[in-house]
Amino acid sequence: RIAMLLAAPRSADRPLIGRKALVTAGPTHEPIDPVRFIANRSSGKQGYAIAAALHDMGADVTLVSGPTTLPTPAGVQRIDVETAREMLAACRRALPVDIAVCVAAVGDWRPTAPSTVKLKKTPVTPRALELIENPDILAEISRPGPERPQLVVGFAAETDAHLADAVHKRQRKGCDWLVANDVSPGADIFGSAENQVSLVSEAGVDPWPRMPKNAVAARLATLIARHLVGDG
Amino acid sequence: RIAMLLAAPRSADRPLIGRKALVTAGPTHEPIDPVRFIANRSSGKQGYAIAAALHDMGADVTLVSGPTTLPTPAGVQRIDVETAREMLAACRRALPVDIAVCVAAVGDWRPTAPSTVKLKKTPVTPRALELIENPDILAEISRPGPERPQLVVGFAAETDAHLADAVHKRQRKGCDWLVANDVSPGADIFGSAENQVSLVSEAGVDPWPRMPKNAVAARLATLIARHLVGDG
Repeated sequence: RIAMLLAAPRSADRPLIGRKALVTAGPTHEPIDPVRFIANRSSGKQGYAIAAALHDMGADVTLVSGPTTLPTPAGVQRIDVETAREMLAACRRALPVDIAVCVAAVGDWRPTAPSTVKLKKTPVTPRALELIENPDILAEISRPGPERPQLVVGFAAETDAHLADAVHKRQRKGCDWLVANDVSPGADIFGSAENQVSLVSEAGVDPWPRMPKNAVAARLATLIARHLVGDG
Repeated sequence: RIAMLLAAPRSADRPLIGRKALVTAGPTHEPIDPVRFIANRSSGKQGYAIAAALHDMGADVTLVSGPTTLPTPAGVQRIDVETAREMLAACRRALPVDIAVCVAAVGDWRPTAPSTVKLKKTPVTPRALELIENPDILAEISRPGPERPQLVVGFAAETDAHLADAVHKRQRKGCDWLVANDVSPGADIFGSAENQVSLVSEAGVDPWPRMPKNAVAARLATLIARHLVGDG
């Protein structure tokens, strides 16, 4: 009983109590046919770490996740999806929230007409797979309106990252903050436990040192709490 | 010391001692750009189970595996690859072997010209992804020659499986046995612990009952041992 009292949440440690957060994480899978799909190298680690960090600060967290092999962070409500369109629908159902952090590596394109049967080899090669653009989940959530979260944070993973591009991307998407990271093969970020990001906001560009993904998550969650509820 | 003697291999239990086996398993990932790729739903479970079953029977097993989240079966030498071409090269290096079991779901196509930088969205949609046929690993290993394994077993996963097709496929590929399974979404095979297969050989088609993937592996390994070394 004493232990329970000692373990009770303290508001300084849990500044996001009473706040709802939506986090997207992982890749999307865009079907070509019943067995083949387009995927990407996102492991989901950074997004899961952010969901855990926001929960640790007291937020009520919904994690909309593409296919990953990660365990669900304790206390977080996880919704599994495969495609970008499923992810967008799950995000819409999770609204309204106070905070949205879009970390998922959403497939920009999907096959226009997925086959209902496994495609066979044909003598015709090369063949072309026709692709159509997926919805832009970050831009959708960022759009002004009654359900827009108070704070929308996007992630931008690029292999030829120029911070000037990230500044434009933040404006184009309409999000408040954009976390830009370099996922060149040489940077060794995908699947890694570490990340090196720059936080792009209206105030400018803040390059963070390389650090564990958990530390990126804790630092971001602290900034989110400060932005929403002040230093307390 | 007595325990060691009791645990010593008995030839009846380990009829494949002194035999080399090559098993392929899992999906392949065919890069579109540094972050995106074409994949498939193979979990690798059936191939890993076969590698373990052949090892249990005494074979010296090399497992050439596409990306999976499975642990390496004890005593099996595992070589990790991503693409079909890497898988073929790893298989060639593993030859000569007595037995080859090609369970991997090898991507039939790969993007013709993968980009070295992450592709950006463009105003041009739909866009087309040009694909070229991958090497046919099963057909390559089955080709007559001094390095052809004594027994080559292929797997054929189809969503609209007609056993007549499997009979033709065995002849076209040149393998000795073809294990045909139905991977329609309704059959719930990919990622599942169970499988329902038919063994196609020169002798005809033998449909097996639905059973755990480990049981399919044990039954196949027993038939392989019987074929290679007789009933003992």
